[in-house]
Amino acid sequence: MESHLDADRHRIEGRLEEIGDRFLADLPGDVAAAIRYGLQSPGKRLRPLLALYGYRAAGGADDASLLACAPEVMHAYSLMHDDLPCMDDDDMRRGRPTVHKVYGSRTAILAGVSMIPLSVQVVRDGAKAMALPVSVIASLTETLLAAGGDAGMIGGQVRDLEGEGSGLSLDELQAVHLAKTGALIVASVRMGAIAAGATHSQLDAISHYGRDIGLAFQIMDDVLDVTSTTSVLGKTSGRDAVLRKSTYPALLGVEGAQQRAKDLITDGLDRLASEGILTRELSQVANFMVTRTS
Amino acid sequence: MESHLDADRHRIEGRLEEIGDRFLADLPGDVAAAIRYGLQSPGKRLRPLLALYGYRAAGGADDASLLACAPEVMHAYSLMHDDLPCMDDDDMRRGRPTVHKVYGSRTAILAGVSMIPLSVQVVRDGAKAMALPVSVIASLTETLLAAGGDAGMIGGQVRDLEGEGSGLSLDELQAVHLAKTGALIVASVRMGAIAAGATHSQLDAISHYGRDIGLAFQIMDDVLDVTSTTSVLGKTSGRDAVLRKSTYPALLGVEGAQQRAKDLITDGLDRLASEGILTRELSQVANFMVTRTS
Repeated sequence: MESHLDADRHRIEGRLEEIGDRFLADLPGDVAAAIRYGLQSPGKRLRPLLALYGYRAAGGADDASLLACAPEVMHAYSLMHDDLPCMDDDDMRRGRPTVHKVYGSRTAILAGVSMIPLSVQVVRDGAKAMALPVSVIASLTETLLAAGGDAGMIGGQVRDLEGEGSGLSLDELQAVHLAKTGALIVASVRMGAIAAGATHSQLDAISHYGRDIGLAFQIMDDVLDVTSTTSVLGKTSGRDAVLRKSTYPALLGVEGAQQRAKDLITDGLDRLASEGILTRELSQVANFMVTRTS
Repeated sequence: MESHLDADRHRIEGRLEEIGDRFLADLPGDVAAAIRYGLQSPGKRLRPLLALYGYRAAGGADDASLLACAPEVMHAYSLMHDDLPCMDDDDMRRGRPTVHKVYGSRTAILAGVSMIPLSVQVVRDGAKAMALPVSVIASLTETLLAAGGDAGMIGGQVRDLEGEGSGLSLDELQAVHLAKTGALIVASVRMGAIAAGATHSQLDAISHYGRDIGLAFQIMDDVLDVTSTTSVLGKTSGRDAVLRKSTYPALLGVEGAQQRAKDLITDGLDRLASEGILTRELSQVANFMVTRTS
């Protein structure tokens, strides 16, 4: 992503380390270490950036960087569990061995489940540092947990696993992705906007933007799985074909999928513009979705 | 437990079924079924009863039965994960095959993690039905998640697994149990008292009572593992010895352990009495801890 986003990402990385130090004192050895390992994965930090930029787009002026990490904690838990042998059974993630390869499945499961309450604690502490009222904290918590719960990631994960090798239609595939990755991306940018006191129609536009870029992200994930190599991707490429998963390139062709992703970005940005909250930052994140190479 | 507690337990059972029906519509097939199966396990419903009785002891007069189910949802998740092959590896629980034996480990893991946000949703809906203010809802959520998070069940579970075969001291064993089962029992009775607007000193007494009966419960669990049979217990008896776990009977003898449990109950009830909130219901639950046979 553009280099002047690096300052924000650097701040986010610092906050994630802080979370490891501040919140994990009560956890015995390996579980705390596994959580830290998961949080320090060299990720793109899209969700915290989206929370931060949603906050600023809706007029927020405080330091929202701790609050913005809450969806990243939830995301890190979901990766940890997705990689488990009984789920996707992945050995590598972002160029490093997956959590269960380092700490074992038992610790990876325990670390993952303890990150759900941890993410709520981060919401609370982040929101308190910004002196947000308790009703806003409740709304933030609800937004995060709904995305991490039945209607969100879990539902998508189940449908994804069920869909392996079974040939989903484009609509079914979209429903899987909206739930599995879209819900938390929408929640991230929405949480930022909620913290800034966005209006209902602004929140609608923000959610629409989130859904659009979330889908675009997933489409490009599928495209990269076909076009990239394992070393560039940092995880095993070509797995979708091995697992006979339905993908956008399989359904639309590589170019068709890329065009679909671009159309989604355009639509998302139009929505923000019509509410007067299209910022350079939100535009950059959206464009990153379709230009990234890993 | 005494037969006139049956009405409350019956109401709780109805609420748990309702939770299955109301909240799980968005979850695909097996995960929803696994959650229902877990919630409908023929358990003692101690945690909901404690929440209900804590509420009434602190002067609450509304119907708190839905709110009271929130810690049971958290408890049911923890059992589901504790029984997994990579954890305690148990095939039977309360006379039925464990969740992963019926639905597989993958579904048991997914069902378990989705019950954490579900438990928070139950807090929210239960509290809203009682028209509790948002600050109280926040406090209830915090109490529940803290018990389910790092300082509570997870920490205890890790220490328990680490302690297998290694000979814990009495103090270490007590710390494990306070975290693994005690934290959620304390949270249950405390949540009821918080919902009723208990004073700080009442909450202190309630928490003390919760710790005491939680430990007594665990001591008697260890005792029953030694003295009971698999058919009465509804789970495999004698497993502690097989796993070479530290237990109270091993450290204090069976009679010494039983006496310790009785002393704890007396202490807990004294605390409630000194705050003027010793009710017949809370006394009955406490006594059940040391008289139960399964």
